[in-house]
Amino acid sequence: MSSAVSPLAPKTVPDMPVIAGVRLATAEAGIRYKNRTDVLLAVMDKGTAVAGVFTKSKCPSAPVEWCRAKLKGGKARALVVNSGNANAFTGKTGRASTALTAKIAAKAVGCSESEIFLASPGVIGEPLDATKFDGVLGRLAEAAEPGDYLAAAKAIMTTDTFPKVATATVKLGKAKVTINGMAKGAGMIAPDMATMLSFIFTDAPIAPAALQALLKSGVEDTFNAVTIDGDTSTSDTLLAFATGAAAEHGAPKIGRASDPRLKAFVKAFNQVLANLAEQVARDGEGARKLVEITVEGAKTKASARKIAMSIANSPLVKTAIAGEDANWGRVVMAVGKAGEPADRDKLSISFNGIRVARSGARDPDYDEAQVSEAMKAPEIAIKVSLGLGKGRDRVMTCDLTKEYVAINGDYRS
Amino acid sequence: MSSAVSPLAPKTVPDMPVIAGVRLATAEAGIRYKNRTDVLLAVMDKGTAVAGVFTKSKCPSAPVEWCRAKLKGGKARALVVNSGNANAFTGKTGRASTALTAKIAAKAVGCSESEIFLASPGVIGEPLDATKFDGVLGRLAEAAEPGDYLAAAKAIMTTDTFPKVATATVKLGKAKVTINGMAKGAGMIAPDMATMLSFIFTDAPIAPAALQALLKSGVEDTFNAVTIDGDTSTSDTLLAFATGAAAEHGAPKIGRASDPRLKAFVKAFNQVLANLAEQVARDGEGARKLVEITVEGAKTKASARKIAMSIANSPLVKTAIAGEDANWGRVVMAVGKAGEPADRDKLSISFNGIRVARSGARDPDYDEAQVSEAMKAPEIAIKVSLGLGKGRDRVMTCDLTKEYVAINGDYRS
Repeated sequence: MSSAVSPLAPKTVPDMPVIAGVRLATAEAGIRYKNRTDVLLAVMDKGTAVAGVFTKSKCPSAPVEWCRAKLKGGKARALVVNSGNANAFTGKTGRASTALTAKIAAKAVGCSESEIFLASPGVIGEPLDATKFDGVLGRLAEAAEPGDYLAAAKAIMTTDTFPKVATATVKLGKAKVTINGMAKGAGMIAPDMATMLSFIFTDAPIAPAALQALLKSGVEDTFNAVTIDGDTSTSDTLLAFATGAAAEHGAPKIGRASDPRLKAFVKAFNQVLANLAEQVARDGEGARKLVEITVEGAKTKASARKIAMSIANSPLVKTAIAGEDANWGRVVMAVGKAGEPADRDKLSISFNGIRVARSGARDPDYDEAQVSEAMKAPEIAIKVSLGLGKGRDRVMTCDLTKEYVAINGDYRS
Repeated sequence: MSSAVSPLAPKTVPDMPVIAGVRLATAEAGIRYKNRTDVLLAVMDKGTAVAGVFTKSKCPSAPVEWCRAKLKGGKARALVVNSGNANAFTGKTGRASTALTAKIAAKAVGCSESEIFLASPGVIGEPLDATKFDGVLGRLAEAAEPGDYLAAAKAIMTTDTFPKVATATVKLGKAKVTINGMAKGAGMIAPDMATMLSFIFTDAPIAPAALQALLKSGVEDTFNAVTIDGDTSTSDTLLAFATGAAAEHGAPKIGRASDPRLKAFVKAFNQVLANLAEQVARDGEGARKLVEITVEGAKTKASARKIAMSIANSPLVKTAIAGEDANWGRVVMAVGKAGEPADRDKLSISFNGIRVARSGARDPDYDEAQVSEAMKAPEIAIKVSLGLGKGRDRVMTCDLTKEYVAINGDYRS
């Protein structure tokens, strides 16, 4: 668990500005980990809008069910995240534990339980002893301050090797608004849902329904385009909170996602999501290579996505990349098994810009030594051209290394 | 490539009887491997019926396309298998190479090219130099004898650590008939197709259409219920040859798969397929544990299959088993991501007969030490009860070890 920081970690961490209306605090509650923070409390001002997208798992965790239910109110006052225990598949105890955590948090913050949002990454199936929150959340609510997002990102880590934060500042009307985000990832990450855990905070005054629409659209090419191992967590949660505090210095109140004044905001919002999603791929368990897979010339974008994901989730492609082997034959295999329209004799494949296959066969100009050299890079771009249509998509993943097996063979025991 | 024999290899190898009408020969053609046999020629008597099922890959290999086309004739005189080069994704060269191999084989055996069947497991994308077969196949046709099936199974190996053969003898009418089979497997194995490579030989007089129906039905719960890594090869081929020689000593000629006289034969035929399929799982690349996953109480058998495959292909489940960790939370995850009907609160899960979860939570009687001990066994049975209906299915897989990553990171280079 104390693995070194991923070699793919971003070289710099951005300075995270404060967001008016958001206060943060972290603590060591000893839920699972020792000698590190494992609880985050974010307290939001009254009137904060909330939106969320969640795992599509048929067996979601108790906190996911809680959040889904509370999202209908559209308002949030607090977010409680504890790392190390997913409180998933814990039966009635799990639901009781979630309700008790919300009750404790609501009392600490002074709000309704329906304004409390919860997330718990970590081991599935271990009952979460929510009584440990008693006292802790009260102290955190008092200590909460406008600000240390990096400390907050550290408190939500499980097998992550580095904290993941991103920020953007953009004009909304004539006012400056800020978007901050944090994420945790590492393993059990695949789309078909929202994401692992990620929380976005902004002072922009955006109504819940509009925020929900932005979030739903934003994840499609960001968090949903990232896969580590094709495994989908029961706890994946992405929540966005908009305090609206920027209205005080002139930001217009936004009621609809289609509002043209949102254009720059949407771009910045999606960049924050994309940045965090890429960091998740960069911290894939045991990852040594960041892999970007672009599929073009597919019949449709959806078809391109399916083929890209088939490549991204192929153990044989991922182990070849770990071995710095431009094994394009396995890419062909993964294209073939996706079940989407593909014509072997029109396929072209390149690794880091070097075309290795075209028209259904090895590229005659393909120089093994040149490609081998290119495969040593920490970032590998695989491009597949199908030559059938205009469908194009891009997903991010990482390689499959012995360390992934070690991390996941030893995780619980 | 010279890995030790899988610890899961069968303890004994059956004596393989001869099959009247089938002669075998192997040779070292130096296609890829040195100092080992890499070409198999099987010569069948005139009138031999053939049936086949193949990969569902959208990018099949040239030999698969060849076999599919020739299957329409229903008759076979020879099978040529070369290991080490898949002749897949080799463009026009690949098709020409396949045609040339068939031409050389037809001349050697003295038959029509349309009675030649071909298979080539190995690296994708490397042109196969069929001229290497010139001479070799002629010598093999002369040397072919009624059989060393174990030698034949050895000649078709790639990353396999042991040859895979199975046999059964059964009454058809009042005559004794024999079914012999061989397979190669190891990696790039997932269903949604026929199988890796497997060849079945029998002296039973069964017409092509009936044999095809038997084969199609037989793979469903055997080869199609095995997965190593969820990756589907472009070359997967399962061919069955029925020489009909047993008619000479009284076996009835069978024209329809529904013929009631076939009952015992079908059972034995399916046992041979199941035996070979299990051996493939036992020789999964890097495998240290054979894993049987049974899902019951699903809405339908198809739903149970989908959930079982989701568990079998989950890297997190497979690495946990490699780590001898009864991490049933990951089984819940895999059930949830399958997208099939499942009710978290009705789920029960057991490992090797020990129930660890029931009714949506940890089994109160679950003894970690007892389960940990059970997980040390080389064979792990995971049973999931959904409690929704009568759908039941079973699939076989293996664990995901560091050796899998090593084998597949170094395979081509």
